[in-house]
Amino acid sequence: MGQMQVSEVGEFALIQRLAGILGQAPPPELVVGIGDDAAVWRAGAAYLVATTDTLVEGVHFLPAALPWADLGWKALAVNVSDIAAMGARPLFALVTLALPPGTPVAGVDALYGGLSDCAARFGVAIVGGDIVRAPQVSLTVALLGQAETRRGRPLLLLRSGARPGDVIAVTGSLGDAAAGLRLLRQGVPPGDPRTVAQLRPDPPLGVAQQAARLGIACGIDVSDGLLQDVAHICRMSGLSALLRAAAVPVGQTARQEFPAEALALASTGGEDYQMVFAGPRALIRRLRSLSGAVLTEIGEMREGPPEVRLLDEAGAEVRFASAGWDHLRP
Amino acid sequence: MGQMQVSEVGEFALIQRLAGILGQAPPPELVVGIGDDAAVWRAGAAYLVATTDTLVEGVHFLPAALPWADLGWKALAVNVSDIAAMGARPLFALVTLALPPGTPVAGVDALYGGLSDCAARFGVAIVGGDIVRAPQVSLTVALLGQAETRRGRPLLLLRSGARPGDVIAVTGSLGDAAAGLRLLRQGVPPGDPRTVAQLRPDPPLGVAQQAARLGIACGIDVSDGLLQDVAHICRMSGLSALLRAAAVPVGQTARQEFPAEALALASTGGEDYQMVFAGPRALIRRLRSLSGAVLTEIGEMREGPPEVRLLDEAGAEVRFASAGWDHLRP
Repeated sequence: MGQMQVSEVGEFALIQRLAGILGQAPPPELVVGIGDDAAVWRAGAAYLVATTDTLVEGVHFLPAALPWADLGWKALAVNVSDIAAMGARPLFALVTLALPPGTPVAGVDALYGGLSDCAARFGVAIVGGDIVRAPQVSLTVALLGQAETRRGRPLLLLRSGARPGDVIAVTGSLGDAAAGLRLLRQGVPPGDPRTVAQLRPDPPLGVAQQAARLGIACGIDVSDGLLQDVAHICRMSGLSALLRAAAVPVGQTARQEFPAEALALASTGGEDYQMVFAGPRALIRRLRSLSGAVLTEIGEMREGPPEVRLLDEAGAEVRFASAGWDHLRP
Repeated sequence: MGQMQVSEVGEFALIQRLAGILGQAPPPELVVGIGDDAAVWRAGAAYLVATTDTLVEGVHFLPAALPWADLGWKALAVNVSDIAAMGARPLFALVTLALPPGTPVAGVDALYGGLSDCAARFGVAIVGGDIVRAPQVSLTVALLGQAETRRGRPLLLLRSGARPGDVIAVTGSLGDAAAGLRLLRQGVPPGDPRTVAQLRPDPPLGVAQQAARLGIACGIDVSDGLLQDVAHICRMSGLSALLRAAAVPVGQTARQEFPAEALALASTGGEDYQMVFAGPRALIRRLRSLSGAVLTEIGEMREGPPEVRLLDEAGAEVRFASAGWDHLRP
């Protein structure tokens, strides 16, 4: 054990170790702990929802490809997505900004501007934070929100909330964030509209809150990649998921720019920050008609081993090189 | 403006710029925003207190001098200190761990152990977080707490809460954290008891909560250095502070190891994570007798320009090269 490195263990196993060491005696106020999109804590009659996410230069973004204002927007938006994935409403954020001493002040001002625009978009207040020196830029946001309650119980979308027979549905389209990243790497400038999905994710917060209000019990955001994110639902709900490849709503940029790999980008590319719900068909359809959102049924939950299978129209399993993103593996 | 670098502006001016860009229209739920030890947010009848602090390898610690378990302890303890500085009780934390892929798993386990020990010490639950890849280790903790209330009003220690004539008092002793850092840099091993104040800060949480409960209205923790931290009180309260050099409680390690610079270490060294209170003499004395804590009166608040003056027994001002720590200046 002594010399094993974190790259050999991977992000998810490391989180499990953390949960094992820390989660010995969870306090009664802790409603949802490590393992969902956000934690839920009961404070009196209020159910608080808390999450944190980081963007690190050179790992999550390349400075040349992610303008300062977009970095500010995205760092908050990915956290809003986690609060949305619980069906909750974001309230306030703490922002930790790590900067090399040579960072231009104008860049930091632009970053604050993007952060501020995103905060206004989602009704979030930036209430504090920390500024530290570091060899590269990174931006960590901790976001607090609150779940609605009905008769004293919180209305939450949980990874563990799926039931056999539930329909799996996804908002919007997938793959354009990954396609946008490829284009940026090929030298397409950040102002190009094909990069918007990558640079300015816009999580469907209102739809997610409406889902929780309607009684849909299961949701997750598409951050690591559809297959990997649905696999989290499978693991936490103890069920299988069957997805129909032909039903996956592939985004226009992915289809037009990378037609041969569009399905792979949509299934494993990640960073779309759309929402996946699992719930009874009647509730999914009610959510679609009430919200007016694009909401595509892509499969269903079944009894069986906790794994996702993506099937083509002949019923054969479609496989990709990777199901998604692991933050620690090379 | 375009080419100015953050190192020329400094941490505090940068936070002011952030507050200016973001703080245009603070929501009514925001009770205390950017500028105190922590933010305070009203959620129904509850007053939530939120803070975040980061430790970055090579900036806040040297890997050889800060063992993994101590890093875990300290990252949480410095945040507990911020919640204490508001007079509140910490509840739950989110932990973001940035790691190079080659980090030994045994080190991460030890870090989790130190984090867990500190969480148990202060009654904090670790409820979630994020693990990301980065070129160097850093650890960001976001900590949520709650203020007590009396007749519906929160009992808070604020930087802006000092009044003319208030006595300034400090818990414990100062300078040993800075002395411990010097010893570590000189090659003294982390197991040496003279390094404990540096490696395992132990903020006086109970005393701070008791101060708020007694009606003391002003407090700050000693993180950046006594003079700089009291200067924050001066700025936010619009008052002067007079401190008596002879009264500053200098720690034993600082006195014994660095006698010539002991007062400088105690006044500007920082990282002591003791508490400074400003309040009526009667309340300060009541706090001392009720808590049984070491609580030393070191000066008082006066009408006048917002600055701190440290006076020797002849009444001459004592000056040091630096008042404390700025995270962005070289």
